Amino acid sequence: MRAYDIIKKKRDGQKLNKEEIYFLVNGFVKGEIADYQMSAFLMAVYFQGLSDEETAYLTFAVRDSGEKFTASKIHGIKADKHSTGGVGDKTSLVVMPIVASLGVKVAKMSGRGLGHTGGTVDKLESIPNFKVDLSHEEFIDAVNNIGIAIIGQTKNLAPADKLLYALRDVTATVDSIPLICSSIMGKKLTADDDVIVLDVKVGSGAFMKDIVSAKNLATLMVETGKSAGKKTVALLTDMSQPLGYTIGNALEVYEAIETLNGKGEKDFEELCLVLSANILSLSGYGDYSKCYKMARETIKNKTAYNKFIEFVKMQGGDLSNFNSIEDIIKDSIVKEVRSLTSGYIQEINAEEYGLASLALGAGRNQLGDKIDYSAGIILKAKIGDKVEKGQVLALTVSRNATAHDIAKEKILFNTVIGEEKSKAIKLIKETVR
Amino acid sequence: MRAYDIIKKKRDGQKLNKEEIYFLVNGFVKGEIADYQMSAFLMAVYFQGLSDEETAYLTFAVRDSGEKFTASKIHGIKADKHSTGGVGDKTSLVVMPIVASLGVKVAKMSGRGLGHTGGTVDKLESIPNFKVDLSHEEFIDAVNNIGIAIIGQTKNLAPADKLLYALRDVTATVDSIPLICSSIMGKKLTADDDVIVLDVKVGSGAFMKDIVSAKNLATLMVETGKSAGKKTVALLTDMSQPLGYTIGNALEVYEAIETLNGKGEKDFEELCLVLSANILSLSGYGDYSKCYKMARETIKNKTAYNKFIEFVKMQGGDLSNFNSIEDIIKDSIVKEVRSLTSGYIQEINAEEYGLASLALGAGRNQLGDKIDYSAGIILKAKIGDKVEKGQVLALTVSRNATAHDIAKEKILFNTVIGEEKSKAIKLIKETVR
Repeated sequence: MRAYDIIKKKRDGQKLNKEEIYFLVNGFVKGEIADYQMSAFLMAVYFQGLSDEETAYLTFAVRDSGEKFTASKIHGIKADKHSTGGVGDKTSLVVMPIVASLGVKVAKMSGRGLGHTGGTVDKLESIPNFKVDLSHEEFIDAVNNIGIAIIGQTKNLAPADKLLYALRDVTATVDSIPLICSSIMGKKLTADDDVIVLDVKVGSGAFMKDIVSAKNLATLMVETGKSAGKKTVALLTDMSQPLGYTIGNALEVYEAIETLNGKGEKDFEELCLVLSANILSLSGYGDYSKCYKMARETIKNKTAYNKFIEFVKMQGGDLSNFNSIEDIIKDSIVKEVRSLTSGYIQEINAEEYGLASLALGAGRNQLGDKIDYSAGIILKAKIGDKVEKGQVLALTVSRNATAHDIAKEKILFNTVIGEEKSKAIKLIKETVR
Repeated sequence: MRAYDIIKKKRDGQKLNKEEIYFLVNGFVKGEIADYQMSAFLMAVYFQGLSDEETAYLTFAVRDSGEKFTASKIHGIKADKHSTGGVGDKTSLVVMPIVASLGVKVAKMSGRGLGHTGGTVDKLESIPNFKVDLSHEEFIDAVNNIGIAIIGQTKNLAPADKLLYALRDVTATVDSIPLICSSIMGKKLTADDDVIVLDVKVGSGAFMKDIVSAKNLATLMVETGKSAGKKTVALLTDMSQPLGYTIGNALEVYEAIETLNGKGEKDFEELCLVLSANILSLSGYGDYSKCYKMARETIKNKTAYNKFIEFVKMQGGDLSNFNSIEDIIKDSIVKEVRSLTSGYIQEINAEEYGLASLALGAGRNQLGDKIDYSAGIILKAKIGDKVEKGQVLALTVSRNATAHDIAKEKILFNTVIGEEKSKAIKLIKETVR
């Protein structure tokens, strides 16, 4: 088998078989197939696409390129929720305790964030003393005992994905739905979950800007998950504005706690309940509407909140400073961003809000950057809201005095206010099964 | 300017400007643009193509990537013929002395052959003592004094082409007409000829297997030559069987001498005359039919033959062993390949005949291989000929006793003999101006 022939076959629109795809991916990881051959292949895929079957093989080759998590020591059904990445996305912090409080096991391996979307590990590390460097045994024990645990990525999971992504990033081959699918699902499948619920974001703050591409990606990911023998569902959800009302690590943890206490933004709570209900239903807890009610009940009766507290305590976290939003921001400079005009908020560019939060110190520009855990944005108005000139649109939170002006400019520039009354945005657009 | 943006622009079907194309080619030659980016670009070109203008810029960027020949010291009109490569193609050996005998200057810089198509330098080096390592001054003087000289490629001409071709060769991006054009013309234009006549081969022994692709390539090369300010014409000629009746270095030199003496195969002579007439006409010697007659006359009155003798002598060659074909083959083993059946020759696979000749020792499998100059094939029958079972189809010539069987098998397997009378092949298919 030769890389040349595989490239040519794909270039000519022919279907590749499993052996050919594994040969290419494994050869590339071992350094036996040159990056210039791989990039030519990726560009050929950009133009010729991949069939569902080829996408599954590529995904499995990525999954199998390194170490894997062995789920066999975890008792019961193991589930996870995966988001394609958004701004202010703290759903995992709410969904995990909801489903775990009902007996589903969540053993989350999560990476740190880069750029304008934050990582779940970073959010949790904003809780003083929260430890993600558990040993493998501690991790398994925690999951078996209390139902949830999270660990930073220590194993060499799906190394092919890192290498392929780095190459795609510099060769204009990122925007290919089968390649995106194999990257996300290739990593995801290393966790060996029984149930996978995908939250595919669409809109200005998401990788997928339009609903058609998002749906194609969601469908392909669900098919790929199923062909790996996993119960898989995807939701298409809005990311045309930040999710909830906070962006930033500790701010988002606080909002998650509020939501678990039944005091969250209704739209955001609804999304968490729908995601949870899908996990529960795929995990064998009954039909969707029954599962939805069960999930809602865990918020009402505080079992989800209590599970979250138990989980944080198990990993060493100290929540004594998370009783109010004032607690979070008390050591930071807080500035108001006031509207320059009156009218209805028509558009918010979620990605730009994410970049504003990054400028405030809430994220990393590059690997190794230090995060200001309390930094971020508190939104006071969202799409569809009526605002008056001078009204506060948002608060910027940062210890860095000079970052506020940049963030303010970004927020004002990326908030479209018009005279016409605009429709509020529907958060959950579609379910792909 | 970033390579990424140029790749993306081409991927998206947008037109690149001159600066972008030069940036990419120069950056690649300098090692500032990575091979994996260049290969992604080449694959994008494979799918999106290049406009005539972009092709010209790419060709000029290749031409300008290294040293160039300065034609200013050569008096008069400087012309050259370039073939896209075929089997048994010794036209240069006939065309050069024809046009030089009439005053056109031919300063040929030629590389050595690799694979199944031979190089003009290799053919001439089959003449004992023939030297191609002239100094630049000797080369110019020879051209000015006698009208023709040939030199091996010593300068660093069009290094971008070598690098690009090596990359295309392993990334399945060779088969792209704009890339082929920029490779051939980029190198060709470094010679700074006033007149370029291209012999674009089509058929089983050529790179272009079908007439449509060959015509597209010819048209693009002619346009590119013109936009470089050169008078350019292309002929589309048949390569569905070897050209003339010999394949192999000394054998082809002998056939060229026969042709210059008016004793060559008529089809082959006609091709040489048409190529020469085109060069003469573009060089200002009058209309095509006048030029054709002038060229024919140089064969009748031996001026072309005498020019060839003068040229070989000037470069040190000793033709005392080129008086008959027996002279050439006297130190080799010669074996007959006899037909296994009776009928008409319907098809000959020229490429496979070329590979048979390579097996006999007439070419190089890899750079540095030593050539058996007298080795090759003498064809005794071509397409359209009637043959009887047991009749000699070809003679194989080699000092290597074991190579004959391989060559014989190849020849028999790649000669289709059928009952129906087949039409003889038209050698010159079309002229592209």
